[in-house]
Amino acid sequence: MNKASRLFWPTLVTPKNAVVKPTEQLSRSQKLLTELGLVKAGSNGTYQIMPIAQRTIDKCIQLVQRNMQAAGGQKISLPVLTPAQLWKKTGRLDGDISEFYMVRDRSGKQFLMSPTHEEAVTAMLASAAPISYRQLPQRLYQIGPKFRDELKSRFGLMRAKEFLMKDMYSFDVSLDAARQTYATVTAAYERFFRQLELPFVRVEAASGIMGGSQSHEYHFISPVGEDTLLQCSNCSYAGNTEVFGNEADAPSTCPSCQSAQLSRVRGVEVAHTFLLGDKYSKPLGATFLNTSGKPEPLVMGCFGIGITRVIAAALEVLSTEQQLRWPKLLAPYDVCVIGPKAGSKEQASAERIEHELLNQLAQICGAEQLLHDERKELTIGKRLLDAQRLGHPLTIVVGAKATQLEAPKLELHTSGSEKLELEVAEVLQLVTQHEQHKQQLLQSQLEETNSEQQQEQKRFGHVH
Amino acid sequence: MNKASRLFWPTLVTPKNAVVKPTEQLSRSQKLLTELGLVKAGSNGTYQIMPIAQRTIDKCIQLVQRNMQAAGGQKISLPVLTPAQLWKKTGRLDGDISEFYMVRDRSGKQFLMSPTHEEAVTAMLASAAPISYRQLPQRLYQIGPKFRDELKSRFGLMRAKEFLMKDMYSFDVSLDAARQTYATVTAAYERFFRQLELPFVRVEAASGIMGGSQSHEYHFISPVGEDTLLQCSNCSYAGNTEVFGNEADAPSTCPSCQSAQLSRVRGVEVAHTFLLGDKYSKPLGATFLNTSGKPEPLVMGCFGIGITRVIAAALEVLSTEQQLRWPKLLAPYDVCVIGPKAGSKEQASAERIEHELLNQLAQICGAEQLLHDERKELTIGKRLLDAQRLGHPLTIVVGAKATQLEAPKLELHTSGSEKLELEVAEVLQLVTQHEQHKQQLLQSQLEETNSEQQQEQKRFGHVH
Repeated sequence: MNKASRLFWPTLVTPKNAVVKPTEQLSRSQKLLTELGLVKAGSNGTYQIMPIAQRTIDKCIQLVQRNMQAAGGQKISLPVLTPAQLWKKTGRLDGDISEFYMVRDRSGKQFLMSPTHEEAVTAMLASAAPISYRQLPQRLYQIGPKFRDELKSRFGLMRAKEFLMKDMYSFDVSLDAARQTYATVTAAYERFFRQLELPFVRVEAASGIMGGSQSHEYHFISPVGEDTLLQCSNCSYAGNTEVFGNEADAPSTCPSCQSAQLSRVRGVEVAHTFLLGDKYSKPLGATFLNTSGKPEPLVMGCFGIGITRVIAAALEVLSTEQQLRWPKLLAPYDVCVIGPKAGSKEQASAERIEHELLNQLAQICGAEQLLHDERKELTIGKRLLDAQRLGHPLTIVVGAKATQLEAPKLELHTSGSEKLELEVAEVLQLVTQHEQHKQQLLQSQLEETNSEQQQEQKRFGHVH
Repeated sequence: MNKASRLFWPTLVTPKNAVVKPTEQLSRSQKLLTELGLVKAGSNGTYQIMPIAQRTIDKCIQLVQRNMQAAGGQKISLPVLTPAQLWKKTGRLDGDISEFYMVRDRSGKQFLMSPTHEEAVTAMLASAAPISYRQLPQRLYQIGPKFRDELKSRFGLMRAKEFLMKDMYSFDVSLDAARQTYATVTAAYERFFRQLELPFVRVEAASGIMGGSQSHEYHFISPVGEDTLLQCSNCSYAGNTEVFGNEADAPSTCPSCQSAQLSRVRGVEVAHTFLLGDKYSKPLGATFLNTSGKPEPLVMGCFGIGITRVIAAALEVLSTEQQLRWPKLLAPYDVCVIGPKAGSKEQASAERIEHELLNQLAQICGAEQLLHDERKELTIGKRLLDAQRLGHPLTIVVGAKATQLEAPKLELHTSGSEKLELEVAEVLQLVTQHEQHKQQLLQSQLEETNSEQQQEQKRFGHVH
């Protein structure tokens, strides 16, 4: 079980003689993350993740992985260092390169600290023995740090210079097959965002520096978003106004159905997908052997989810000025338990109830998902404030009323600041419901996936 | 379940017109990893990890994490980019810096692609609100890529320029307390290496560029090791000959007990621990408030395990010229199942047995731990060869003898190339034993840990 007294949790206390730099533009949630000691600003747009926030990152990684594997993804790791020469071949060093971190090794050879890995993964395929059409599709993903020397890094983790990303690269025999992969992987994306229980929208996007024929972005819908999105309520069209150059040039009627029922909402971009075609496989010579044994360029897609960005954006959408709020599946802990203060007259009997409660909770949600705030030198009120600011889905207080001889009660606080006085059995039932809801969120995915995988296997003839 | 036909598994076929570069010095296991398509050489001492090897890396990460958390470790993430300025403060840029990758951002500010994070983590502590003696010890760890521009990278993953590392940093109130942390963390290291079931030794080491007062290395004992170690059979002394400048200067009698019973063995370094004292906390101003409320420098330790190096070294020690062999807890899959060839006369009936077997195996070891080699277009012999080269702990063949009416038999092959003809029930029993052994390896750790944690809690007065 996690004990609050042992946690490394460096809440921010600005030293008296500190020079506060106004350069860093912090959003609401980023301000809370920093003040609460979950994230610390490193140098210049880089961030240090502290233990509580690291738990959320690890949960997010696991959730993304489940969905990628369900979509047929296989995990790999590509080096951070990519030879600049590969990027010259695809022409991506011809334009503005000011956002790239470039580094030379001791022999003078130039590398990029990779902002993305299309070149590296395509060159890897090109250097492998030619793959047969029978082995396709292949969908390879990794999770690791990416680097972009942003002119203006801001909003903390939301737009950092070093960030954590899940990137998947797909390889198919034809544009039709690649479209099928695109549909399968984007379905997995939608499942992931539904599991976070946040309003999101998929919009048509500009493919920009990536190139390729088709591209979509996933946005959380929120007034704090940096992008302006168009949504048609007459048809299913949704698009980023960026596609039209700038926002002012965006049309006032739907580009798809010409209806005037086109509204504008703000969005925070959290994922981006591209149907790349042969833009990378051609110049880098990545081919497969077709049914006649002749080499043809692989048809590619790429699919990114900003892990740290998803978390930052979710917090930005959900949190209040004073309290963090997390997607249920990503909260650092499911339940926080606050016990009696040392020296209070009910301490001994309340501690017996607390001990028994912790054992029962560990059975329900696993000891790892519990935070026990046993800082008994602090008042219950002070600890409850911390718990509310951290935004645990459920906080249980074992206080004076727990020791009442008739009808002993615990306090249950939800992250929505709802406060209930309940008997132990009622508390355990609500915790059980919370865990069941989490399981349902995970499970719904698996059932869909199984039927999808069966369909895919039929399509590709891999029925066993 | 994992299906061999769908795996991305780019076995090496040297193209006819390839120019083979003799610059890369490959060890036995690295040659196998490359030929079998588990790892691909990227550019110049960097490596791409393919899906089968990635499974082992993920298992190794999980095992290291369990042990770090059992030793009171809390997981964090520090940026790859560390400002060079911090390294100037500790004097580590004054010497030879040719092994460091240095990079400038768009404003001209210089960063290291971190080879290690003492400066970064200490500066982080220094910038936090002063920590109280009550909150110590703190033990923070991370797992991520590290960078070292080796003059001669060689032996593949064993000495790569970009490698995966677990690094822990500890903070204590005094040298005595730091020694206690050192004992707790190194006990966790020894547990980890015991769990890998490989012969290892802890030796006194030179602290080198890290500085500090005490330092130990962990080595796998193997004739392929690059280091020469001294071991005394009269007392418990063990040391790296590096400590004495060079091997020739190493003594012929034990430096500890003066006995002549000093033997030399070769070792592969896989981990390094340092008692750092205040070498970093003093120049960077990382203090805690002592019992009188006065600031004092934190007393530090640091503890590294090379994740990719441990795996490479374990394979080097265990494998034969033709076959990989894995520590049980790190094998990519526990069991490989090979079914009948398509078109064989026993195909239909053998497939029914195979199907039932797979279901039962999934119950015993979990579907995720199974590799089903269902490439029915290949002969059983060809697939068995692949399985033996990959070194699965257990490979089960459902062949012609499985369909005998009287006494149907399966073939069970161990990674030691032992071949048994067994009934289904016997096969299931051996798989069950294998899983039980794995569980025991994991469990022995937990029991030790619980008693250690209780002792620590008593020492630090955190008994609840």
